Amino acid sequence: MMDTTVQNIVVEKVKTSKIDQIDFDNLSFGSVFTDHMLVCDYKNGAWEIPKIIPYQPITLDPSAKIFHYGQSIFEGMKAYKDSNNDVWLFRPLDNQKRLNISAKRMAIPELPEEYFMEGLKTLLKLEKKWIPQSEGSSLYIRPFIFASGKGFHASPADEYKFIIACAPSGSYFSGKVKVLIEETYSRSANGGVGFAKAGGNYAGQFYPTQLAVKKGYQQVIWTDDNTHEYIEEAGAMNIFVRINDTLITGPTSDRILDGITRKSIITIAEDEGIPVEIRKITVSEVVEASKKGILKEMFGAGTAAVVSPISGFGHKNMNYDLPELESSYASLLKKRITDIQYNKTEDKFGWRYKV
Amino acid sequence: MMDTTVQNIVVEKVKTSKIDQIDFDNLSFGSVFTDHMLVCDYKNGAWEIPKIIPYQPITLDPSAKIFHYGQSIFEGMKAYKDSNNDVWLFRPLDNQKRLNISAKRMAIPELPEEYFMEGLKTLLKLEKKWIPQSEGSSLYIRPFIFASGKGFHASPADEYKFIIACAPSGSYFSGKVKVLIEETYSRSANGGVGFAKAGGNYAGQFYPTQLAVKKGYQQVIWTDDNTHEYIEEAGAMNIFVRINDTLITGPTSDRILDGITRKSIITIAEDEGIPVEIRKITVSEVVEASKKGILKEMFGAGTAAVVSPISGFGHKNMNYDLPELESSYASLLKKRITDIQYNKTEDKFGWRYKV
Repeated sequence: MMDTTVQNIVVEKVKTSKIDQIDFDNLSFGSVFTDHMLVCDYKNGAWEIPKIIPYQPITLDPSAKIFHYGQSIFEGMKAYKDSNNDVWLFRPLDNQKRLNISAKRMAIPELPEEYFMEGLKTLLKLEKKWIPQSEGSSLYIRPFIFASGKGFHASPADEYKFIIACAPSGSYFSGKVKVLIEETYSRSANGGVGFAKAGGNYAGQFYPTQLAVKKGYQQVIWTDDNTHEYIEEAGAMNIFVRINDTLITGPTSDRILDGITRKSIITIAEDEGIPVEIRKITVSEVVEASKKGILKEMFGAGTAAVVSPISGFGHKNMNYDLPELESSYASLLKKRITDIQYNKTEDKFGWRYKV
Repeated sequence: MMDTTVQNIVVEKVKTSKIDQIDFDNLSFGSVFTDHMLVCDYKNGAWEIPKIIPYQPITLDPSAKIFHYGQSIFEGMKAYKDSNNDVWLFRPLDNQKRLNISAKRMAIPELPEEYFMEGLKTLLKLEKKWIPQSEGSSLYIRPFIFASGKGFHASPADEYKFIIACAPSGSYFSGKVKVLIEETYSRSANGGVGFAKAGGNYAGQFYPTQLAVKKGYQQVIWTDDNTHEYIEEAGAMNIFVRINDTLITGPTSDRILDGITRKSIITIAEDEGIPVEIRKITVSEVVEASKKGILKEMFGAGTAAVVSPISGFGHKNMNYDLPELESSYASLLKKRITDIQYNKTEDKFGWRYKV
């Protein structure tokens, strides 16, 4: 049995913090990093005890499998600081579990829960000063694993690195986005890796998104690869559609990520008495609903942006605008979820996790 | 306009070669590397002039996009040394062109042809001693590009590295393989990135292959993601099926790699007077042909293994054995292609390229 008890994570602190160089009033997303990072190596068939070291470059052999075969997975999380200076995570065990679900599909050895959770808490306590307190800001946390083992043979690596890096961040998107419903490209296959947070799922989206941007849209709505008739995801987020007063989202599958924001929104919406349907959404019904004036809202949901409202969509060379609502589900649900995250309200579902 | 003339590639040589430490009689595939590598950086919107430096580790920020979003592509090539000590490549411009086809799909800036070809030739001239001369051995060449630019935003990187590393190698597979026709997992989606040599395409195959190995097979035969009724690729290779005396391979598509070995085999087979069909292959016809005794051969085709004969396949919990033939297409075609590669025969198609 592997010893997964983490009694004493070795911490090597920086000599001088760089925190004074950071403009906390003008943070972009994920572009400045805190003083330290957690590193945990998989070698000789086991994960070693994690350690915390100064944030620093990673050195790899040119034949490291990450460069050649895309064996990498990640998670996205946030730490929130409330008005009492207490630090909170949101459903972190769900990220830990999903990391291992992704790991399994990508033939990466699963990481012990304790290494993830104790490592993360130790890192966040050390980096507490880096967690912004202002409205909408948070410490974006990026746990990731990649294949560091060497060799050109197309097979799983024998060594991996698990790293947690943190970036104090403002909000991810600003304003509403106009989206293109994809008719040519696709994000994932049946029996593929779309449900995993695998690196390659994201790189594959960049080119179709660039094409959509050239046509005047900001994001792509992904559809199934076989018929392009079912709506699956919005960019790198899950998607919600409101027709009349019913909120609809697609069921998770091997093509669709089991988003933590997605399932939290479903719970909150049901708690609000909103009729929620988890079922396949067709492009035709969305187009028809728009024509009839009963398509009230569309929005993406994910950790980075929380809720990202959509102002309109393009499909088969036609554009469809969504109405401006005085009280939208998007803003209601975003407020309820962020109020829980920032400890501004009761946590009736037990989602907050104190660091 | 970018200046893509490469007059003088700067070469920084190693002080002491490590070639004396290598056992050239016992080379595995892609696990020891030559003294030098080519490195070319993309920065400030342009590829810089490539340089050759001692083979050495790569240093990257933990937020480098390769770790998070799988933005990486590669090629596989070989250099062959003939009995006169002359060095040959096989259709290298096709690799150069395909690298840029992959680059476009993965939102990676295209690399000037001259940088690839002049860089490669300069590197191979420097590493000539490393190219094995023995039967079946060659210098495996791995050109690859990955996103080195920083930041957690899920968008294309602003910096990339193009590297060519080389590994003197023995043959990739030994012996025939037993394969499992996949009924659950899949390799690529319509409108996806399956035709590109993108890293993520390979990592996604590891887990289904592990499951097949547990069942007693060595490789997976990939089928379409929608019906699992069409045969698409064999592991990381293209696939050929011989029914009676007709050689059949699937058409290239956005799901299937345009393999250089594949198209060379088609040309040679036609030159041999073998009836060749390029059309979709159904699982049912392969199973039926096997039952009737007219399924003569199946083999994979790719740069690393050249031709990899299949001894039998599993499908829906049944196993089907292929016959042992005295004169197989696989061995005929492998001999003809390798004879051209190693300069043992006339090059009637103009495929050899002298370094």
